[in-house]
Amino acid sequence: MRAVALAGGVGGARLAHGLQRVLAPGELVVVVNVADDLERHGLVVSPDQDTVLYTLAGLADRERGWGLAGETWSALDQLGRLGEETWFAIGDRDLALHVVRTARLRAGARPTEVALELAARLGVPSRILPVTDDTIRTRVRTPDGWLDFQDYFVRLRCEPEVLEVTVDGAARARPTPEVLASLATAERIVVCPSNPVVSIGPIMAVPGMPAAVRAARDRGVPVVAVSPIVAGRALRGPADRMLVSLGGQASVVEVARRYVDLADILVIDEADAGLAGQVAATGIRPLVAPTVMTDDAARAELARAVLAAA
Amino acid sequence: MRAVALAGGVGGARLAHGLQRVLAPGELVVVVNVADDLERHGLVVSPDQDTVLYTLAGLADRERGWGLAGETWSALDQLGRLGEETWFAIGDRDLALHVVRTARLRAGARPTEVALELAARLGVPSRILPVTDDTIRTRVRTPDGWLDFQDYFVRLRCEPEVLEVTVDGAARARPTPEVLASLATAERIVVCPSNPVVSIGPIMAVPGMPAAVRAARDRGVPVVAVSPIVAGRALRGPADRMLVSLGGQASVVEVARRYVDLADILVIDEADAGLAGQVAATGIRPLVAPTVMTDDAARAELARAVLAAA
Repeated sequence: MRAVALAGGVGGARLAHGLQRVLAPGELVVVVNVADDLERHGLVVSPDQDTVLYTLAGLADRERGWGLAGETWSALDQLGRLGEETWFAIGDRDLALHVVRTARLRAGARPTEVALELAARLGVPSRILPVTDDTIRTRVRTPDGWLDFQDYFVRLRCEPEVLEVTVDGAARARPTPEVLASLATAERIVVCPSNPVVSIGPIMAVPGMPAAVRAARDRGVPVVAVSPIVAGRALRGPADRMLVSLGGQASVVEVARRYVDLADILVIDEADAGLAGQVAATGIRPLVAPTVMTDDAARAELARAVLAAA
Repeated sequence: MRAVALAGGVGGARLAHGLQRVLAPGELVVVVNVADDLERHGLVVSPDQDTVLYTLAGLADRERGWGLAGETWSALDQLGRLGEETWFAIGDRDLALHVVRTARLRAGARPTEVALELAARLGVPSRILPVTDDTIRTRVRTPDGWLDFQDYFVRLRCEPEVLEVTVDGAARARPTPEVLASLATAERIVVCPSNPVVSIGPIMAVPGMPAAVRAARDRGVPVVAVSPIVAGRALRGPADRMLVSLGGQASVVEVARRYVDLADILVIDEADAGLAGQVAATGIRPLVAPTVMTDDAARAELARAVLAAA
């Protein structure tokens, strides 16, 4: 069964890993957010893509959630000694990947080509596709003004209140041919439990993406989303506070409202079973299942539930 | 006393360190070979410059001779996992420097500006100057054909016989204004115990360098060279075998012949005192002194002897 998953960071990567475990090799395409990419020390860094890449390659650090297992930090120490800002912590192994990616991009390769190469080099049986080869960048408005996403997310540790979100460059961006082809042949589309505002939002903000998903749904392909909010809280990251500061609620009902034009089904955790009626009232079909992925087995179990939901 | 030292790798760096210890801060300029620079993984790597930089910053690994003390190798391991060639071993801390240098160069800075910045950032009280901001590259002819210098030096561990040496780009290169200004105000010029063929050779192959050194000598500035050959052997590297395969001898007399147009004095080790007469016969004045720099005190002692030689 050919599946396309839309994913941002850690939660999305974990469900993508579950899907990879239950699907036959090559059947999974993960379309990743690239609006939180940045340039650091002259290198192109793609945090969401790399979280997915490392997770699907079995190399991710399981406790920290981001970066690589067995990582070391000598280069960061040296960058600090050289007077560079080090609030964006790049590990030594991670740095090697950014170096290779940057070299390939500077040699003229498309971001999509590089993403496919890197996944292949790390033995990942799935395809990881940037939603676009164009440059898009999430910015957030806080009480102190507009910030680049990683400035908000990493440097300021998500502490400022987010009053508005924009994706610079989105209007001029286009989905890649690879993304459109994957959606055109998908049998399932999965919206992973990533931040609806700053992970899934920028993916769907690329003109052409809503129509491509709509076309798949018109062909009868079910779109199944998994709520990143469980019992009113985001398992990781600022999604809960962000949904509130943007004028909504931190609840699966809010997630349903945001996804009503995107998905057919919203998987909500057993802890939120009592809200199933309110989810249904938004027009999206709720499915109650355990969504907290504590280990590889839980990732695969959720993936099976998602694929069977349709 | 304002001194300009011409230096290649490890031996040159050690004497430069000694000179830095005995001169007042700011009085030493080290003009470094850049003909063994290379691009690896899309990064600009400048091995001789970095050996001098790390040594003058007190960060060099003393046993290995090159690279940084306390170095780790995670990025190299990851580069290998990503399918990159890893025969040119870049440590994690070293990688950080190449990343910063490359970013500054790509942002439009001159190599000289970057060299001065990096030395300042690492607290080095001396100026380290690339002989040229132009691209020059040493190539060596072996029985199997022409090789890039690092291909010969690192990948093939100096094993092939060197039959000919050329410095690509030298004819079109120019010394930097900073190098020329340093030579114009120097009170001593020191030719460090670096490989005469592939370290000092490329520095002096830049048109304008011989005339600038000659002008200093005409002003009465003594040029003191230190032999990298001791008792017929190079302390490090292939200088001894190279002098022979290029048609000469592995001896201080051969070094004297090569430096007769460059230097007034050649410092030779006590082990070679018996060859002082033959050195003098070439037209260069021999000075016998301990030249093996076993520790910081020996570096300073040799530096004092060199500065006092004139």
